[in-house]
Amino acid sequence: MTQAAPEPAGDAEARDLIIHRVLKAPRSALWRAWTDPELLRQWWCPKPWTTEVKAFDLQPGGAFHTLMRGPDGGISDNPGSFLEVVPQSRLVFTSMLTAGWRPNTPWLGFTAIITMADEGAGSRYTARVMHPDEATRDRHEKMGFFDGWNTVITQLEEFAVSLS
Amino acid sequence: MTQAAPEPAGDAEARDLIIHRVLKAPRSALWRAWTDPELLRQWWCPKPWTTEVKAFDLQPGGAFHTLMRGPDGGISDNPGSFLEVVPQSRLVFTSMLTAGWRPNTPWLGFTAIITMADEGAGSRYTARVMHPDEATRDRHEKMGFFDGWNTVITQLEEFAVSLS
Repeated sequence: MTQAAPEPAGDAEARDLIIHRVLKAPRSALWRAWTDPELLRQWWCPKPWTTEVKAFDLQPGGAFHTLMRGPDGGISDNPGSFLEVVPQSRLVFTSMLTAGWRPNTPWLGFTAIITMADEGAGSRYTARVMHPDEATRDRHEKMGFFDGWNTVITQLEEFAVSLS
Repeated sequence: MTQAAPEPAGDAEARDLIIHRVLKAPRSALWRAWTDPELLRQWWCPKPWTTEVKAFDLQPGGAFHTLMRGPDGGISDNPGSFLEVVPQSRLVFTSMLTAGWRPNTPWLGFTAIITMADEGAGSRYTARVMHPDEATRDRHEKMGFFDGWNTVITQLEEFAVSLS
């Protein structure tokens, strides 16, 4: 499968939140931590919240559904699906569609593009999160996007180092 | 690419509008009429409306954007993207995402699955249109979904017969 035009044009970028990191883990370990749901659940959300992986069908149009629970009874339910899977380098998933390309009514509309590449003994890791409009982007940022996603990426890094 | 679970579960079906037709044209001609934008624009919307194909990138995540104009100046602008392309048999596209998997803010949220199979000298043709919720499904039906899509499928049939 060739990749569809990955670069958005013009002001679409203003609807994105982007994190670039260099991680100590090799990308083979990052990929393994990402694509085995039994491993994913161990680093997926900021501790002490816990993750239940309700569906994980790693193919375009396949379900990706996590349910997170907080220590005080809070719940975050996130049905979605994978859109693109390029082994060892690129994962795309969305809340806009669920399994079989079915339209969703997400509480937060987004598509995330995760890319990883070699960087010395470790990896460059990028998360680009695209939103339907600037208001949704801003809401996501105010919810603590950068703190939350960076915490989770550090959890991923430590977990993947322990695997490699 | 294997196909992601195509069959929706349970009450998700209540959010779908489905048309089954048997068409006189062979599916090779249907596929050709569907996948060449210069041909597509000739049958895509009920006449005397006309279609401008603003983007047509026939691959998963590729842009599919039509703009329709009515004789009285009415306009219907429909940005979207392809999700799945199985030559000669299956096309999936959505208004929920635009090129590069970018979330959209559609005036009507849907994903359409078009399938075609041999049937004698002609073809079986199915359009399943999935919506985010029953209200959107009902709104689409009241807008004249069955009249509009059936008119267009008949235009496709006649056009494809003329090609074959």
